[in-house]
Amino acid sequence: MPREAIVLLSGGLDSATVLAIAKSQGFACRAITFDYMQRHRCEIEAAQRVASSLGVLEHLVFRMDFREIGGSALTSPVPVPIGRALDDMREIPTTYVPGRNSIFLAIAAGLAEARGARDLFLGVNAIDYSGYPDCRPEFVGAMEDAVARGTKCGVEGDRIRFHAPLIAMTKAQVIQTGHDLMVNYSLTHSCYDPNAQGAACGRCDSCLIRRAGFQVAGITDPTQYAPCTYPEKT
Amino acid sequence: MPREAIVLLSGGLDSATVLAIAKSQGFACRAITFDYMQRHRCEIEAAQRVASSLGVLEHLVFRMDFREIGGSALTSPVPVPIGRALDDMREIPTTYVPGRNSIFLAIAAGLAEARGARDLFLGVNAIDYSGYPDCRPEFVGAMEDAVARGTKCGVEGDRIRFHAPLIAMTKAQVIQTGHDLMVNYSLTHSCYDPNAQGAACGRCDSCLIRRAGFQVAGITDPTQYAPCTYPEKT
Repeated sequence: MPREAIVLLSGGLDSATVLAIAKSQGFACRAITFDYMQRHRCEIEAAQRVASSLGVLEHLVFRMDFREIGGSALTSPVPVPIGRALDDMREIPTTYVPGRNSIFLAIAAGLAEARGARDLFLGVNAIDYSGYPDCRPEFVGAMEDAVARGTKCGVEGDRIRFHAPLIAMTKAQVIQTGHDLMVNYSLTHSCYDPNAQGAACGRCDSCLIRRAGFQVAGITDPTQYAPCTYPEKT
Repeated sequence: MPREAIVLLSGGLDSATVLAIAKSQGFACRAITFDYMQRHRCEIEAAQRVASSLGVLEHLVFRMDFREIGGSALTSPVPVPIGRALDDMREIPTTYVPGRNSIFLAIAAGLAEARGARDLFLGVNAIDYSGYPDCRPEFVGAMEDAVARGTKCGVEGDRIRFHAPLIAMTKAQVIQTGHDLMVNYSLTHSCYDPNAQGAACGRCDSCLIRRAGFQVAGITDPTQYAPCTYPEKT
């Protein structure tokens, strides 16, 4: 029996790569995706496509309404920033969602404990990213420690280990890794502000980082961008 | 303008006391209650009564379905343990909910950050309790640290402080404190396995600890117990 792992699967490029990495390491994976009423909810469908494509034991779509918390352009009518320079993304943008990764990790850890999995994979990256504090190794390590102290399995000495295999990779390295593992990136979705048909805007942080990653890796970007809508976006 | 605080309000005796303590310290409070499809969902109505009685700026009932995670007698058809000896409650019972307080604290911290509150009150207690690992000071401190590292305000040096004023109190001391602050405990609900009318079973861990607390404090217990249903319960 292979060891089981829980993989946080957003539907984006990074988490798809992480699922492929976890499988390549021999884990039988259960994926969890969060439907938090994000404006780019089409990423949930992308997560379902990725989970089907790569194969999982279970795919749980866990629902919450973060609009009740607010404080983010991803869950409120605040515009998503567009056209930021790639080397200027250390300033935390309005797309930051208060507490998001601590909430996601806490729920995923609860699922891990309930299912008997002791390995939890997440696709955070602290190199080519938007500056979110909850994507940095200092946070991931602290959260792993809190989960170890707050779970039955953790206090019994059988702690849940957090794996963030992309955390020190550039986006190009992530894409190269997934490419080598045969990840079909056309199934993934990264854009924060897609049009009604789900096509990517090409100008938000997430699109800009993704596009540049494919360019640097020298791999064809399969993303469907919607360039004709650019002038209308604010 | 008074400082604002977020208070985790379950509808039980402890969190009602904590709300009264936070108010007595001068905080203007926002309460958050979790509807996680727990079997004792009547505690949510109790939380609404308590919030109305004590007065809050906002009372958010945040919904999630923990039955999808499972692993607990509080969210699945597994029977709630009854009749455990008070001095034998260090063994973690089946009412333990995997990851619960880390999930609750992460969401409450997200709400705190979004509302501009930097103080978060919770009613955990590690003396007269059911042995849950996520009620102990080691966990609360580790979670506070993780939140500080994973939030925008935290990395900017304006961290959210966690307050657990009951953590080292006996249940009798909690009740005496709330009594002195005029908390109306008849509005609160503690039982894990109430009958259809919401009356407490009197025999689960939560009822046993509550009953003993009132007895030791020498204060009349206003709880409506349902003794006639005892023989039928399993």
